[in-house]
Parts: sequence; structure tokens; C-alpha cells
Amino acid sequence: MTPTISIARLKSHIEALSGFGRNPDGQGITRSCWSAAHEEARKWLLARMQEAGLATRVDQAGNTFGRLGGSGPTVMTGSHIDTVPRGGPLDGALGVLAGVECLHVINERRIQTRLPLAVAAWSDEEGRYGSLFGSRAFTGKLDPKAVPGFRAADGESLVDAMARAGFDASQAVKAKCDPKTLSAYVELHIEQGPHLDAARIPIGVVEGIVGIRRWRLTFDGEPDHAGTTPMAWRKDAFLGAADYALSAREHVVKKGSGRSVTNFGRIELQPGVSNIVPARAVLLQEIRELDPKILARLDRECQALCRAVARRRKLRVKVETLSRTEPARCAPRVLAAVERASTTLRLPFKRMPSGAGHDAQNLATITDAGMLFIPSKGGRSHRPDEMSDWRAIERGANALLHTLLDLAG
Amino acid sequence: MTPTISIARLKSHIEALSGFGRNPDGQGITRSCWSAAHEEARKWLLARMQEAGLATRVDQAGNTFGRLGGSGPTVMTGSHIDTVPRGGPLDGALGVLAGVECLHVINERRIQTRLPLAVAAWSDEEGRYGSLFGSRAFTGKLDPKAVPGFRAADGESLVDAMARAGFDASQAVKAKCDPKTLSAYVELHIEQGPHLDAARIPIGVVEGIVGIRRWRLTFDGEPDHAGTTPMAWRKDAFLGAADYALSAREHVVKKGSGRSVTNFGRIELQPGVSNIVPARAVLLQEIRELDPKILARLDRECQALCRAVARRRKLRVKVETLSRTEPARCAPRVLAAVERASTTLRLPFKRMPSGAGHDAQNLATITDAGMLFIPSKGGRSHRPDEMSDWRAIERGANALLHTLLDLAG
Repeated sequence: MTPTISIARLKSHIEALSGFGRNPDGQGITRSCWSAAHEEARKWLLARMQEAGLATRVDQAGNTFGRLGGSGPTVMTGSHIDTVPRGGPLDGALGVLAGVECLHVINERRIQTRLPLAVAAWSDEEGRYGSLFGSRAFTGKLDPKAVPGFRAADGESLVDAMARAGFDASQAVKAKCDPKTLSAYVELHIEQGPHLDAARIPIGVVEGIVGIRRWRLTFDGEPDHAGTTPMAWRKDAFLGAADYALSAREHVVKKGSGRSVTNFGRIELQPGVSNIVPARAVLLQEIRELDPKILARLDRECQALCRAVARRRKLRVKVETLSRTEPARCAPRVLAAVERASTTLRLPFKRMPSGAGHDAQNLATITDAGMLFIPSKGGRSHRPDEMSDWRAIERGANALLHTLLDLAG
Repeated sequence: MTPTISIARLKSHIEALSGFGRNPDGQGITRSCWSAAHEEARKWLLARMQEAGLATRVDQAGNTFGRLGGSGPTVMTGSHIDTVPRGGPLDGALGVLAGVECLHVINERRIQTRLPLAVAAWSDEEGRYGSLFGSRAFTGKLDPKAVPGFRAADGESLVDAMARAGFDASQAVKAKCDPKTLSAYVELHIEQGPHLDAARIPIGVVEGIVGIRRWRLTFDGEPDHAGTTPMAWRKDAFLGAADYALSAREHVVKKGSGRSVTNFGRIELQPGVSNIVPARAVLLQEIRELDPKILARLDRECQALCRAVARRRKLRVKVETLSRTEPARCAPRVLAAVERASTTLRLPFKRMPSGAGHDAQNLATITDAGMLFIPSKGGRSHRPDEMSDWRAIERGANALLHTLLDLAG
């Protein structure tokens, strides 16, 4: 008989984990990495891993592992248990708990695999202090000199946050693994977008994870009196930023791949009062795209557009690159394993990129990595009403189980 | 011989007053009403008034008066000694100190006038707690129920600030004057705009003070994931606000009086992070215009435009009126007195509106009021390098002297 996961047990675990960091108003979950709620959730997770018969380990970067089986390169799954502020119950939690469930079933049923299996919960995927922190450390991408500078938007340093949770940030680089100990990595996640839900397709086979460029654009004009300065004389930094944002959005939509996206999540004006023309506008922009050539071109073209808008409006502009993540291609043999598993389970699937960043993109640099998505209701995520059907979750967890069995042989 | 002011004495007073609240870095003056620097400046001013032979008085709203002459309705001049943060040496200070100088000269020279004269320094013209506070109280426009709610942008309450300076805010309404005790009001000020400086005209005869509408516009969309949500599905509150701001600016320029102005001094996005589509944008807008009919029409048209942009972009929008100041016409007999004085002094002049608010607009509701402007270098004001030539200041103070002598008969 085809082995299957227990949706009852998985559901009870997802519901229990969503109780850690539940906001006092009952709306959403705030479980930032290293917070008290997160550390309680880690303890709870270690108990669930032990219950599943796994050997547990927490590394110097706070990554939490459960392992099943003996020697040889490991087939790994996982995700993360931290959330964004006011997040939902599935982002990250699903991949970790479905992974624990898969290993629990394999252990319970005494299914023998050629290779050992493991499930990981990576630290600070959401990046309160530094995005994909745990998987960066694990894959050797953490710059030890940068660690002391990692801070949350509210100013709290990673060093203090880790110390409070009993970790020494200066030791985090020691979490680096030997790639030879890994055979493959596959991560289950909600899509966080509307495509699968709209098309009623249960499984998304992730071809790759988009690259992201983030910039801080600082437009400088003049702080003129908003009553006495003729309109034609003004050098209004806000209107410059507004003009650029609308133009850049059109450019990315028309000249990108068709799936290229851009966002302007934050703008701050100085001096920021009603009766003074904005002298400075600081705008955050990001662009995401799977094709590295298109991403590089949009990067160049948007910067040129930005300078042209500033010149036309007699403003100065400074462009600072905040981060630059290259697109990560998933490994063909992992994609093939996901597709075989879906076929075995008679689940329709489609190939798609991931528009969101995931730990899998770091794992992809040291091993064969891939992801599978299940539908997000209405495409919603990073919000309290983020959900999927329990049937969809069951389908996804079973697809993960069969993918792991395929990869572990 | 035509009486004239002493520019040496006036210059020394302007320079001395600019030392109160001078920023530690030497750049600009921060002398908010009720601050320690302001209260020291008030003491210094009272001493200068006494030196000039004036009877002094401070009312319950903190307005400081110097008076010359006996009974009968008073011809009053004045301005304010508070500044914006990092302001310059002339905004407000010029009108007060030139007024003191004029009364000093009239007293020294034993020039007899039919009517008594007075000079006022009005409280909190710049509106750290409530704009034109002192002249509002003096002209009976202060709502006693609103006073406890007046707060600075940093949260400090007017009640606390006044108490610290030794005033009881609940008594401020008692500063209300009997309009019968006033004959006229005339205020000297820097233009704070570029017109006189560009045209090299020494005297601006102010026809009226623009009305101001201020709104808070709240655009609401959806906080979608900035990587996974297709561009066409997004309901981006920031792009809606940007689109509206650019459109409304064009509308005011093209459909206004030609002198109508608008500004968007502040915008705040929520949640305000790079990887989430802005779900809310809160935009401050103001429009200024001298013609009350045009102002009312622009008000209606911009609100309609705002709703149309929101509808087209599938956003909701809430429009809240924050303040609504009607245009104030200056009194023809005060304008005529300024023009006669300018002619006597062989100073070219031009009529113009004031694009900035001034205490004169409150005085205009209870007496015959007017203003005269001198050039601002480069149109700069509300900044450390706000200046005028000392020759231009001398011309303006002499024009004020002759206007006061004309009005006081």
C-alpha cells in the first residue's frame, strides 16, 4: 500500500505551533526569530521531532534539525518556524511540520531508505535581522564581519537577540556544513501567490527562485515654502519619486519577462511637514525576476530611468544597492522526483518560478535543491488570513513524502 | 525733515534677537513658542520696548505688546518672535523689531499722532502647537474646548508648554480684545517668495492673504506579497497616491488662478517594508489661493479627482479636511496708506497676494488690516540662509514708519 501521512496529526501540529506568538487580539502570529515565542516554539518542535523518533540537533546559527537513518549523504527537507509580524499559520511552519510528519511516517512504517533523511527549521528566514540567516550560515555564505552589524528595523541587534535566546552570534559561521554530507534538498511551501489557487492545480513544481535587487533611491530637491514659491520654481523630491515609481512600474511590466515584478514598499519625506516642499524623498524599490539576464537589464534600465526623471525635474538622485540576490535554478533531478511523486499520487502539477525568496535558494548553491508549492487561498500570505485547504495540505505533504522516498532511494 | 528709522539700531536688534535659540552648530535658529529660548527672547524684547519708551503688557495668550500714546482706537503693527525649526533671522523678527524701532523714533522725535500706536509680538505664529495661536486668541477665534487638544508633532501638549513658560492655557481665551479699541493693523514681513527679489521691487503691497485647505487623504489597498502577486492583481496604495499627487499638481497648475499652489508635504506607507505591497498610503495635501471661489472649486475638483484615481486603481480612499482657512482681503485704506508712504519715500511698489499665512489675516477679521513685504533673497525663508539686504530692510522699516504715521494721523 502507498504510504501516506496522517493529516489529523499534521493538522494538530500546525494548529499547536500557531499558538506560539499568537497576537493578543487573536489576529495573526508574530514569532520573530530569537523571540521568547520563537524559543518556546523551538522547544516544542524538538519534542515533536523526538516523538517522531528523530535524532535532534541545534547548530550554532540556531538551525534545528531532526535526523533519521545512518551514514551517507542526507536527503534533507525543511523550512522555518519564524514568521513576519502578524503573519499566518502556514508560511514556513508547513514545510517544517510536513517534513517532521513525513519522517515520522517513514519511521513508524519502518520504511528503509538507502540514504538518511533529515528535516531542518532554518533561523530567521523572514529576515528580522538578516534574511535567510540560518541557511546562509549553513551554506557558508555568512560573512562573520557583517554579523555584528545585523539589526532589526527597530534597531535591535542580532547579537543581543541571539544572546537573549542563549546563542553566541560570533559562533554562527561555525554552522557551515560540508556539502559532501548532503545528497539533495526539497522544501514544501505555500505558493504565497494566486496562480495555483486560480488554476485549481494542487502542486507547483518550482523551476527556480527569482533573484531580487533592492535599492534605496534618494531624491534631493529644495525645501521651499509651500505657499510662496511659484509651482514652476519648485524642486519637489516627492513628485520626482512619484513620477519615477509610476514610470518604473510601467517599464518593468512592459519590458520585463511578463513575470517580472517591482515594488516600492517605503518612502520617507524630509522635512515631512505640510507647508514645506519635500526636499528629500527616500524610496525603497525592489525588482524580482527568474532570468538573470532580464534581471540585470531591468536593473540597468531602471537606474537610467531614475536618473532621467531626476534630471528632468532638476533633482539630484543617489542610487544605493541594498541587496542583490541572484536567481537560483532548481536541480532537474529534484524537479523530476517531485513530478514522479505527483504522478504516483495522481496530482496534476505545473512548473512555475518562486516569486518569494526561500532557504532553498541557499541550499541550491551547495546541493541539488528543489521546491514544491501548494495553493494559497486567494494568493494571500504574510497576513493573518493566510490559508490553504486541509485537503490541499494533505496532498502537498504526501507529494513531499513520495519525493523524499524517491530521492532517498 | 522726513523722519527715518535708525538702521544701525534695528540691525543690532535683529542680530541680538537671532542669538536666542541659535542652533549649536551655528546653522539657523530654533525658537519655538514657549521654549526657554523664546521666553528669554520675550524678556529681552520687553526690555527693548521699555528702552523705546513704550508701556509693555503680556496678555493671557502670551502676546507681548508695547504701547505709545493715550486713549482712542490704536493703530497697531507687529509680527512674531517664534521661528520654525532651523529658521532664519527675519521671519517674524523683522516685523516686531521694525515696529519697535518705528515707535522708538516717533517717541524720540516727540512726533505727536492723533491715535495711539502699539507693536505686538503674537504667540506661536509658526504653529508648533496651533498656528497663529496668539492672534487667534486676540481676535476671539480660539475655541476653549479645543485648547487642551493642541499638541506639537512630537506629542508635547500646549497646556504643558505654556505651563512651563508660566502661562495657564485655560486662560488664553481671555486675551480676546474689544475691536472698538483698534483702528488699524499693518504688518511688515519678508516676502518669503521670489517675486520682489526677481523684479527688484523694494515694496510689496499685500492685497490679501491666501486661504488654505489642508487634507489628509488615506488610500487603502491590499498588503500583498511583493514577490508572488502578479503586477496586474495588486492594489498598491502608494502608486495610487503617487498617481493622484501628480494629477492634482497638474490640475491646480492648469485650472487654478495661475497663482494657485499645492503641496504634498508628507506621505506614510503601511506596512512600510520592502517586500509587501503598500496597503495604506496617508498623504497630506494643501492648496492655497487668494480667490475664495477658485479655492472652493479646486477643493471640490481635487477631491473628485482623488476619488476617480482611487476607483480606477481599485483602492478605497478617505478624505479628511484638516483645516480650512478662508482668504483674507486687506483693507483698501491700509493698502492706500502703504502706497502713499512708498510714494513719499520714492520706493517703487507692486500689489501682490501673500502666499503664506500671517497674523494679519486674523486681525483682518476685526479691524482694517494690511501688510507690506520686502524682498527675500532668492525667495528663501524658513531656512538658515533666509535674508534680505540691510538696505531693503531699512527701506521697508521706513515705509512701515510712514504708513503708521499716515494711519495714526
